[in-house]
Amino acid sequence: MNYKMVLKTVGKLLQAEALLLLIPMAVSIYFKENLIYVYGIVIAILLGVGTLLTLPKPKTRNIYAREGFAIVSLSWVLLSFFGALPFVFSGEIPSLVDAMFEVVSGFTTTGTTILVDIEAVSKSLLFWRAFTHWLGGMGIIVFVLAFLPQKDMQSMHIMRAEVPGPSVGKLVSKATVTARILYIIYGVLTVAEIVALLCCDMPLFDSVTTALSTAGTGGFSVKNASIAAYNSLSIEIVVSLFMLLFGVNFNLYYLMIMRQFKRAIKSEEFWTYVGIVVVSTGLIAINILPLVSSFGDALRQAGFQVAALITTTGFGTADFSAWPTLSQFIVVLLMFCGACTGSTGGGLKVGRIMILVKSVFREMRRAINPRSVKCIKLDGAVVDKEIISTTSIYFTVYMLLIAFATFLISFDNIDLLGALTSVISCINNIGPGLSSNAMISHFADYSDFSKVIFTAIMLIGRLEIFPMIILFLPSTWKKSA
Amino acid sequence: MNYKMVLKTVGKLLQAEALLLLIPMAVSIYFKENLIYVYGIVIAILLGVGTLLTLPKPKTRNIYAREGFAIVSLSWVLLSFFGALPFVFSGEIPSLVDAMFEVVSGFTTTGTTILVDIEAVSKSLLFWRAFTHWLGGMGIIVFVLAFLPQKDMQSMHIMRAEVPGPSVGKLVSKATVTARILYIIYGVLTVAEIVALLCCDMPLFDSVTTALSTAGTGGFSVKNASIAAYNSLSIEIVVSLFMLLFGVNFNLYYLMIMRQFKRAIKSEEFWTYVGIVVVSTGLIAINILPLVSSFGDALRQAGFQVAALITTTGFGTADFSAWPTLSQFIVVLLMFCGACTGSTGGGLKVGRIMILVKSVFREMRRAINPRSVKCIKLDGAVVDKEIISTTSIYFTVYMLLIAFATFLISFDNIDLLGALTSVISCINNIGPGLSSNAMISHFADYSDFSKVIFTAIMLIGRLEIFPMIILFLPSTWKKSA
Repeated sequence: MNYKMVLKTVGKLLQAEALLLLIPMAVSIYFKENLIYVYGIVIAILLGVGTLLTLPKPKTRNIYAREGFAIVSLSWVLLSFFGALPFVFSGEIPSLVDAMFEVVSGFTTTGTTILVDIEAVSKSLLFWRAFTHWLGGMGIIVFVLAFLPQKDMQSMHIMRAEVPGPSVGKLVSKATVTARILYIIYGVLTVAEIVALLCCDMPLFDSVTTALSTAGTGGFSVKNASIAAYNSLSIEIVVSLFMLLFGVNFNLYYLMIMRQFKRAIKSEEFWTYVGIVVVSTGLIAINILPLVSSFGDALRQAGFQVAALITTTGFGTADFSAWPTLSQFIVVLLMFCGACTGSTGGGLKVGRIMILVKSVFREMRRAINPRSVKCIKLDGAVVDKEIISTTSIYFTVYMLLIAFATFLISFDNIDLLGALTSVISCINNIGPGLSSNAMISHFADYSDFSKVIFTAIMLIGRLEIFPMIILFLPSTWKKSA
Repeated sequence: MNYKMVLKTVGKLLQAEALLLLIPMAVSIYFKENLIYVYGIVIAILLGVGTLLTLPKPKTRNIYAREGFAIVSLSWVLLSFFGALPFVFSGEIPSLVDAMFEVVSGFTTTGTTILVDIEAVSKSLLFWRAFTHWLGGMGIIVFVLAFLPQKDMQSMHIMRAEVPGPSVGKLVSKATVTARILYIIYGVLTVAEIVALLCCDMPLFDSVTTALSTAGTGGFSVKNASIAAYNSLSIEIVVSLFMLLFGVNFNLYYLMIMRQFKRAIKSEEFWTYVGIVVVSTGLIAINILPLVSSFGDALRQAGFQVAALITTTGFGTADFSAWPTLSQFIVVLLMFCGACTGSTGGGLKVGRIMILVKSVFREMRRAINPRSVKCIKLDGAVVDKEIISTTSIYFTVYMLLIAFATFLISFDNIDLLGALTSVISCINNIGPGLSSNAMISHFADYSDFSKVIFTAIMLIGRLEIFPMIILFLPSTWKKSA
């Protein structure tokens, strides 16, 4: 392990976070809040610690898979820790455990909160919450890679460990350029949503924070009642539409910019994603019909919730704990499903589920006819054997982690369904949970122990398990190799 | 596909079932019930249909994997169908769907019932229910193979498809002899339990049926209140002990008979199984302490339920829906866990979980150091790569099936936790489920549609998924190869 190189890179990322905190600081100045000194102190600490870490000179600048994992997981933990300090120093979330939970929920785009009264929080801090969603969605390291390029950080290994999905396609040969293209598409779509929301008469501050939150598929809202607070059909349609757009593989947008429409339109994963959205919306709308006033209303509730859940954004307009069992179970399935590979959404990802289902069918064909050697294809190309085996191991460790985390949470003695769905919601970076008699919209009532577990599970889910777990394996820290 | 050979073998198995039905017939004569004609008619039908199926002469006698799967899954469906007829003809379970559910629950050793008042059922039918557990536990085809040897049925392919576990170790080279050894061990243990129960002052009929039910790790009882009805500590201890004994890999008993104690004692799976039982019992006992009168009582309840659940027997002495969340979740984990490979228990099996956990750790080591090529070892021997990959695919399809079945059951609009745990209980062949406010001890209230789904899920779980699903793949029935 190249320790010094790991520390140096982490140090640079902390310096970058100091720069990023200038934006909420500007917001607090604009709204004439008394928080300037808070941001100032945190920025000073970040610059200090960051500079300290970059002091030791590494012998080589080589970064391999192991270093990539270590950099990503360490920096996510540290960026969250320092990102939580403004909440603590301002006294608006005095407990460090709570503040850390909130910021991890932000960076991992989970969107679950420990705040009971969101509207009482200062605007600049609400902005910082939404901004962590935006940064975390596409990846904060990818962001730094794109706009503050460093000679030492040109490594694909880092990007691979941070960007969601079973495999990261390089758009172009250079990691920096790929990162920049991704962030430009991301930025353009975000601005488009801000404009669309302003057209629906949403206030500017709300439009910006809602758009940042949607883009990262996060789910933090500046209203206690989430999107339902606006009670506006047009806002719900805009938000639904953009949630679904941010759930699409960004490679498809790149292909469309490159005018390769044929290749873009052929994506099996995209059409499966569309299919799941349409079928789930239809089933839930029919199923909840007796509970609402009209079919239009059923479609509106179902459509918004399906988009919010499959993209793992987790905005709420309806209380699905009151829905019939069938709809509730579809909700749980959508939580697992997640959006497309290479999008900002969490969850297992549609592409991964397709690989799993296809490998199951292949295994059955092989059981009948042991001599058959059929490959698994996705979008017409053969899926690498390595990816297939990693995917099914991924699924296994994912389920085992859910079981283990639920075991730890159940010490809190909330009801079993609540504990289970809260864990599912956190590992998939969604937000709300579902107990046997209510929707769990905030996590304030959990014990500190449970909050720490949830914080860990959110990070593990966002970084897709391996980077975080590897941090705790002794063999990672061996000197050799 | 060698159709004629498949039909011929199935026909012979139906004839064998006719012979087996003579035993409950004798019981009904002993108890002077008016059911002799019922058994007579069913036996006649079985002999007739069986003979019809054996008429066409197959060109070759070859049986490969495909034929093995087809024989096992077809015969389990047909044996259950005809085995349900005594209940229908006697009028004691008039609905065919209900009767089929009951007998499948018997053969698959699930032990869940649609009967609300068990004690009102005729003794010979109660005996037949318990006897189906005994036959299904080790495998009804294995039984026929052992004691009614046929030239055409000497195939290891059939045995492999029926005996639970990721891999069937041949004890000796001949399938018939292996089957006979297994059944002798099984029979001796069953008789030992009958004697032990008689010593605890349990009536003879109850002792025999309880022992048959324990041996198959089934769970049908002749009392409405299950084992709790006897209110006897000594009976609970005997039943717990024997449940655990029947959850051990039968190969270990064979090794002990062969005086290979060292090899037997080295079994990693056995010690993991013991470890899980001890730790779970301890945790639950401490957790439920505030609900009971003494630590002894807590240990008694916890110990019995842990043994009943990990072995997938499903006998009840305590209502675990009243337990705290932690204990409830341990209950759910034990349902998944199941007993040892090569035992009569259902579930995933301890051995399979060990392979899964080991392969997860191997994958993580590989992520840090891509050049490492460590093998997975179990009991000191390297686990075949094929078994590792099949095991993780098995786990995937198993979880997907649970999701799909829960989706179908949730049309019934029982609460989500109830639907989910009922499916988990059925696919793992356990018995009771757990809704958010009660233990589900019988399935009488489900719709016919749900009962059919549960019936299918029990069969799929018992035959370990592949044989049943393959029955529905068109490529199974292709003429070629």
